[in-house]
Amino acid sequence: MKKMVLAADLGGTNLRMAVIGENGETKYRSRSSTPSSRRREDVVDLLVGSARECIEATRSDGTISAFGIAAPAVLDHEAGRVLVAPNLPELNDFSLASAVSGLLGIEVFLENDANAAAIGENWLGASHGFNSSICVTLGTGVGGGVIIDGKPLRGIDGTAGEIGHICVEPFGHPCGCGSVGCLEQYSSATAVVRMAKELLSEFPDSSFASGNDLSSLDVYNAAISGDPLANEVFRRFGFYLGVALGGLINVLNPEVIVIGGGASESWDVFIEPLNQEIRKRAFKRPADRVIIVKAKLGDDAGILGVAKLAFSSSNIGLAV
Amino acid sequence: MKKMVLAADLGGTNLRMAVIGENGETKYRSRSSTPSSRRREDVVDLLVGSARECIEATRSDGTISAFGIAAPAVLDHEAGRVLVAPNLPELNDFSLASAVSGLLGIEVFLENDANAAAIGENWLGASHGFNSSICVTLGTGVGGGVIIDGKPLRGIDGTAGEIGHICVEPFGHPCGCGSVGCLEQYSSATAVVRMAKELLSEFPDSSFASGNDLSSLDVYNAAISGDPLANEVFRRFGFYLGVALGGLINVLNPEVIVIGGGASESWDVFIEPLNQEIRKRAFKRPADRVIIVKAKLGDDAGILGVAKLAFSSSNIGLAV
Repeated sequence: MKKMVLAADLGGTNLRMAVIGENGETKYRSRSSTPSSRRREDVVDLLVGSARECIEATRSDGTISAFGIAAPAVLDHEAGRVLVAPNLPELNDFSLASAVSGLLGIEVFLENDANAAAIGENWLGASHGFNSSICVTLGTGVGGGVIIDGKPLRGIDGTAGEIGHICVEPFGHPCGCGSVGCLEQYSSATAVVRMAKELLSEFPDSSFASGNDLSSLDVYNAAISGDPLANEVFRRFGFYLGVALGGLINVLNPEVIVIGGGASESWDVFIEPLNQEIRKRAFKRPADRVIIVKAKLGDDAGILGVAKLAFSSSNIGLAV
Repeated sequence: MKKMVLAADLGGTNLRMAVIGENGETKYRSRSSTPSSRRREDVVDLLVGSARECIEATRSDGTISAFGIAAPAVLDHEAGRVLVAPNLPELNDFSLASAVSGLLGIEVFLENDANAAAIGENWLGASHGFNSSICVTLGTGVGGGVIIDGKPLRGIDGTAGEIGHICVEPFGHPCGCGSVGCLEQYSSATAVVRMAKELLSEFPDSSFASGNDLSSLDVYNAAISGDPLANEVFRRFGFYLGVALGGLINVLNPEVIVIGGGASESWDVFIEPLNQEIRKRAFKRPADRVIIVKAKLGDDAGILGVAKLAFSSSNIGLAV
């Protein structure tokens, strides 16, 4: 029988699950809404129910050896315990892995979603074949995962990789984390909209000078149409991303930096100022070395990451 | 016979060498001036000559199994090759380890001096017993070494750990590296003097309002005497160090940060603003976790670091 694993991406809104084969091929997929009840039993029931459906649907394809779950949480990977999950607070301080494992009778592994995405891209995506990589996810916020010697850098408490909360402007815009001037306040979809609004008075002729319901996509579309305000927004976006990544290149000297997330779709309007800052701010040798690439796996990066982890951790012979 | 190693700290000015026992005890020390000839043969001759002296002097104490050399260079640790050594350019692109090893007949290991200091502090100093640590050296410039899972983070090109060139002020003071606003421009001995001079016009009553020959020690002495200008200098010093370390704590989630180097002697006047910024800028969990401590080994950190590396690399059973 072929070896397969279960892999889930448990978000605040949706649970996505798949059965993944040894080469990363998807055998089956399911999707459901994360329970709104805020009861941890309901989350466990959903995970177990979806898992049983997946197992049943792929019974003839092979044997499922383990189950990896990516969660938006600070967690203790070794213990399979969620510590803090801001968007799933019902899972705070909960041994999710053993709860699910006890009901399903297979090994369960937990991983932080940003780390999972970095592992996924490293297995089958944009950083494939590289031993050291940084994965930056530019979405509503800015997330990150760091791979060193082929392994995710989790840190002593499982909180490592918070690239979005590197300071890039010491007296800058207040951040939800309590600090000011974090990268997340300049190089995220949220930041694109805020910076556009902030610049309206300086660019009265901008194509969206009224723009109350502005989205980051509107700003991007304006930028590619040549709107100066929109281009200034993405210049700042790229500039500050370059400030942060330049520092990371100097500290970590990685082989590759993978940029993903919804806001990475604006690549063509921020990549030039980004590269310019990296060339200015990082030492020549590591700056010449590092490859800056778009993420390849989209929303599947996390699922494939925990699938890889489940294969590796259940000793099927793929090293993570 | 007891096992011992040779360990050298090869700087632009001095070569310091010692014979070190398995518990880090110094059996013999030598010190000489680095040749001013800029000929690599002269550096090799000095290393070999000093090594022979050390070996001879400790012949009755045990057997020397390996030789570790710390150098202020970007280097290929595996190949034992210096790539770029700004203060010892005669060693650029030179296989120093095999040259010395060939003449002495013992294994030779090279390590970057900042990494060596981090390893030394981790073996016998301030980060002893911790698996993940950051070592920051505040001197004329700002150097750094990162230990993850008990091993130095070298990066793909051996350039990792350049904490002094994290950007802390995106439009800040020009740095020798070609960037602007690097940590080194705010939290080094050089920066203390510059910032003091910059602030003279704002503090006409300062005790060193004339101060052309100002040293960082003068500014420190003024600070502990209550001079407002000097205190403002060290507030900025601590502030920017906190900006950089806050980001590193968010990205690396280390157990301990060791602060050494000459300018770390000003600890009592910068530690409060440093801690304040870390509390403000780092996430609570990793900020509460991390211990900020003074380096313990002083100038011996590098020598002890390469001694540890020599013990480990020559398979005597100490893991690095």
